[in-house]
Amino acid sequence: MNPYQAPLTDMCFLLEHVFDAEQTWSSLPAMADAVDLDTAAAILEEGAKLCRDLIHPINRNGDEQGVSFEAARVITPDGYKEAYAEFAAGGWVGLCGDPELGGMGMPKMLGVMVDEMGYSACNAFTLYSALTAGAALCIHAHGSEELKAKYLPKLYSGEWAGAMDMTEPQAGSDLRNIRTRAEPTESGSFLISGSKIFITGGDQDLTENLVHLVLAKISGSKGISLFLVPKFKVADDGSLGEANGVTVGAIEHKMGLKGSATCVMNFDDAEGYLIGEPNRGLVCMFTMMNYERLSIGIQGLGSAQGAYQMAADYAKERLQGVAAGGSPTGSDSDPILVHGDVRRMLLNIRAMTEAGRALAMLTGKQLDLAKFAEDEAVKVKASRYVGLLTPVAKAFLTDRGLDATIMAQQVFGGHGYIRETGIEQLVRDTRIAQIYEGTNGIQAIDFLGRKLTGDRLATLNEFIADIKADMATFGQVSNEQKQRVESLFDQFSSAIAAINEQKGDKPALINALAVEALDAFGYMLYGYLWLLMADKALAATDTLEPGFAEVKNQLKEFYFAKLLAKADFHLSQLVSGDDSVMALAPELF
Amino acid sequence: MNPYQAPLTDMCFLLEHVFDAEQTWSSLPAMADAVDLDTAAAILEEGAKLCRDLIHPINRNGDEQGVSFEAARVITPDGYKEAYAEFAAGGWVGLCGDPELGGMGMPKMLGVMVDEMGYSACNAFTLYSALTAGAALCIHAHGSEELKAKYLPKLYSGEWAGAMDMTEPQAGSDLRNIRTRAEPTESGSFLISGSKIFITGGDQDLTENLVHLVLAKISGSKGISLFLVPKFKVADDGSLGEANGVTVGAIEHKMGLKGSATCVMNFDDAEGYLIGEPNRGLVCMFTMMNYERLSIGIQGLGSAQGAYQMAADYAKERLQGVAAGGSPTGSDSDPILVHGDVRRMLLNIRAMTEAGRALAMLTGKQLDLAKFAEDEAVKVKASRYVGLLTPVAKAFLTDRGLDATIMAQQVFGGHGYIRETGIEQLVRDTRIAQIYEGTNGIQAIDFLGRKLTGDRLATLNEFIADIKADMATFGQVSNEQKQRVESLFDQFSSAIAAINEQKGDKPALINALAVEALDAFGYMLYGYLWLLMADKALAATDTLEPGFAEVKNQLKEFYFAKLLAKADFHLSQLVSGDDSVMALAPELF
Repeated sequence: MNPYQAPLTDMCFLLEHVFDAEQTWSSLPAMADAVDLDTAAAILEEGAKLCRDLIHPINRNGDEQGVSFEAARVITPDGYKEAYAEFAAGGWVGLCGDPELGGMGMPKMLGVMVDEMGYSACNAFTLYSALTAGAALCIHAHGSEELKAKYLPKLYSGEWAGAMDMTEPQAGSDLRNIRTRAEPTESGSFLISGSKIFITGGDQDLTENLVHLVLAKISGSKGISLFLVPKFKVADDGSLGEANGVTVGAIEHKMGLKGSATCVMNFDDAEGYLIGEPNRGLVCMFTMMNYERLSIGIQGLGSAQGAYQMAADYAKERLQGVAAGGSPTGSDSDPILVHGDVRRMLLNIRAMTEAGRALAMLTGKQLDLAKFAEDEAVKVKASRYVGLLTPVAKAFLTDRGLDATIMAQQVFGGHGYIRETGIEQLVRDTRIAQIYEGTNGIQAIDFLGRKLTGDRLATLNEFIADIKADMATFGQVSNEQKQRVESLFDQFSSAIAAINEQKGDKPALINALAVEALDAFGYMLYGYLWLLMADKALAATDTLEPGFAEVKNQLKEFYFAKLLAKADFHLSQLVSGDDSVMALAPELF
Repeated sequence: MNPYQAPLTDMCFLLEHVFDAEQTWSSLPAMADAVDLDTAAAILEEGAKLCRDLIHPINRNGDEQGVSFEAARVITPDGYKEAYAEFAAGGWVGLCGDPELGGMGMPKMLGVMVDEMGYSACNAFTLYSALTAGAALCIHAHGSEELKAKYLPKLYSGEWAGAMDMTEPQAGSDLRNIRTRAEPTESGSFLISGSKIFITGGDQDLTENLVHLVLAKISGSKGISLFLVPKFKVADDGSLGEANGVTVGAIEHKMGLKGSATCVMNFDDAEGYLIGEPNRGLVCMFTMMNYERLSIGIQGLGSAQGAYQMAADYAKERLQGVAAGGSPTGSDSDPILVHGDVRRMLLNIRAMTEAGRALAMLTGKQLDLAKFAEDEAVKVKASRYVGLLTPVAKAFLTDRGLDATIMAQQVFGGHGYIRETGIEQLVRDTRIAQIYEGTNGIQAIDFLGRKLTGDRLATLNEFIADIKADMATFGQVSNEQKQRVESLFDQFSSAIAAINEQKGDKPALINALAVEALDAFGYMLYGYLWLLMADKALAATDTLEPGFAEVKNQLKEFYFAKLLAKADFHLSQLVSGDDSVMALAPELF
């Protein structure tokens, strides 16, 4: 297997030319002195080296060996411990953390690129730090000053890790039913008792302590509250005390992600500290949840990029058959890249992945604006766009991530089914991304039911108006292509308006059409993002690497010729109603 | 996990009402006395029991334990040996074999249904007999009388097994490059030397002998010939002699199908017997290959049916959330089947799977007509339809098979990713079906390049005319739906005609558009098959199980509302040319 090579040129192009990173950062006081394009490029280059030389090399063995569970402790695969120590020491866990508490204070639009590299290099390894960073974000947003001071520096430094403890056997997508209890004590802390399942990184041997963010109900209350529950108690001076009644009951045997410990966690009178207000735990947890949703979207993106590289390398090396119309080199066996069907698959992966990277950075930029902008109007608008884009990033990037790994596996032919080749691991590892952190169906229902129709299309239409205004400035792409994308968004808005009007009479409509709405939006959004990227690349041809702009333009042409029509298909479904979905009686399934 | 329940009602409905089995069989002398609907139903019922009680129970452990390779011998998972012995003793391996040589002489349109049950129950186990039956078919069609008499009774009885030995490391999709050699001996036999990879069932501990059909080049010749190479030599009286220089070099570690041995085979001066003419080996092998292509299509179908049952059972049991608009039972937790998105997935699987079953039987019927019809015109036409439908059955059924298992896994939420649940095994097991026996890309190129444009659309247009004539007789479905399907086929024929005209100037066009052509055809063909099934069911409402016709009609409505538009999408791609596919220079991938 060739070493992983991060797409640094594309990442820097997006930062500099597509999303105006320097201009954006200089407008945000928290960023202005912290980061510029040179710093960002240097960070990406360091991250790329780490992913290539440290993280990617442990990926295959992590799958073969897997985590093990001995004497009630989780043991990660060989090499994880050393790699995590180096990763943490480099400050990567706290890359976007608060600098006043030991974080590096970098913007999220840079963070998403580092996340992508990590997932490309090793899905399972990268989850450990992704959960930690999300837990830190939640504590930072909702925790008391005492909790922040005590826990955040250790989380940012990677000495301790974080986990998100929500699911119980009877409470998955529907968290109303959780049974974990929190008993108040006189000291103001709580005693937490109950069991949680599917806890990613619920235990490991990488860090000396581990901080669980646990949803539980305070005795006598129906509301759900959020608690910080450390594995080992922490003294006021930050030193570790006794074990805190947090144990691992078992680890799950999974389809993939075998280097990531998915734990059954048991809490037995474990000391926990309330985060935020009582009964407002879900709101607080959603800070972490939304962070993880974007992160998991990027898991899909990183898997797609990793898959593309493997398949493209193979297609350039593997000799089989001769090009239709004759070998370009006069050989009697050409690399399979000459075949139209192989190119179709590779271009499909690449066109979707480069647009996906733009979606990730667009979402990251909105997160930065929502968090750091001085202008309240900018902040509020960005925050609404984050709400709009997060379910799309989570679901669309992971659905297309699986598509990409499956297509890449197909390029390998029979060798793609063999474990040693490595591509089938990517299929298995990335499959979960469509399921956890809220299934993609749940994302779609959030998107259509809350984000689009919840405010009667106000955010959607504002977003579309912004896109149209932006496209009006594009001088390097055809009016025909701009109009095509505009028309799609207009049709989409009309279709959603119609759904919004019918939803009162047809309660099942949102649920039945949600996935179609999200997919339609995703494909048309990528149409916009391709025009945006091609326009900026062509406008900057002279300052970019030779040929870069031309390739972007060719990929844009491929997207418009071969993929954008999927938006039409999904749009056509938005008027297909829910009758045929709801008609069949349950017992006839 | 609930026991597997074969869809017997649907199978019998297809035989009796949709494909006029009794009428067909009575018109074929070889079938007339051998089988009627009652016999067929009894065979299906026996097969269903076997699959439920004998084969499905060994499926999960077969995945966990896998095949092992010790002392140069392959050992199958616990239970395989006993199950295979019982399966063989029941005559199932020779179900469609020549009755004069010990086969049961049953029609293929029945055989495909038994194959489906086997694959639903256990993909890996069923491959052993599928390869054996295909090898027997090839020997029957092309072998000498001596070879037939010596080998077929043992293959039909399941005492010996068969394998197909084509691929070599440098020769996968492109068989020109095979290096295995055949040296003629004075006795008329050949000495075979070389190595083959990816040989499904290349060895096992289920049968006392194993017959390899091996592609090799006779020394001094560039052409490829086909040889029968037994693992143990067979004396004239049928008794087993010495080992024949056939050894297993290794077994592959795969994504799935872990109970099926995928072997590296080494032939070292192994005695082989020519099948058919020298240098005509590919033509002979294609008899087996086409058999396996349909069989593998049915692997996809069987996986989809298995996945549907698991997911539907789960959706009826798993309580989570409340129906939009209020619980139908007033409960505060409903089965997830109430949710539109869960129904969407289940109905998608079911609508595609029931149409897929009809496609399998349609292909089986054409195979029966091609083999057994007395009227030469009927025979020739059926044979062309077999050619047209085989790549579609292989590729479309397996692509939709993967879709189905992925959607079913999604219904399970987080539990779908856990090995113990079993659904993730179906995803892994069925993934290979898109790859082996010719990748689905190769199928599509065969379909567009040879089957459609190879005879300048003659077969296609004849097939479309037959479909139109058939639809004209449908009295139970709307004219609008009939016209919708007619219009799709007309557009398809025009698009293919345009490709046929351009292909001389654009050599890459066929390869670049092939998959779109196959998918477009698949979705519109399913449109026809749904009208056919709904029409026949509604016309026979009174003689069918109560409610059966109504369910068929509801599924047809779902297909027309939600899935047929995919034909439009793929059609739209047929005019998108190959420029955007071929433009990017190889070094820029």
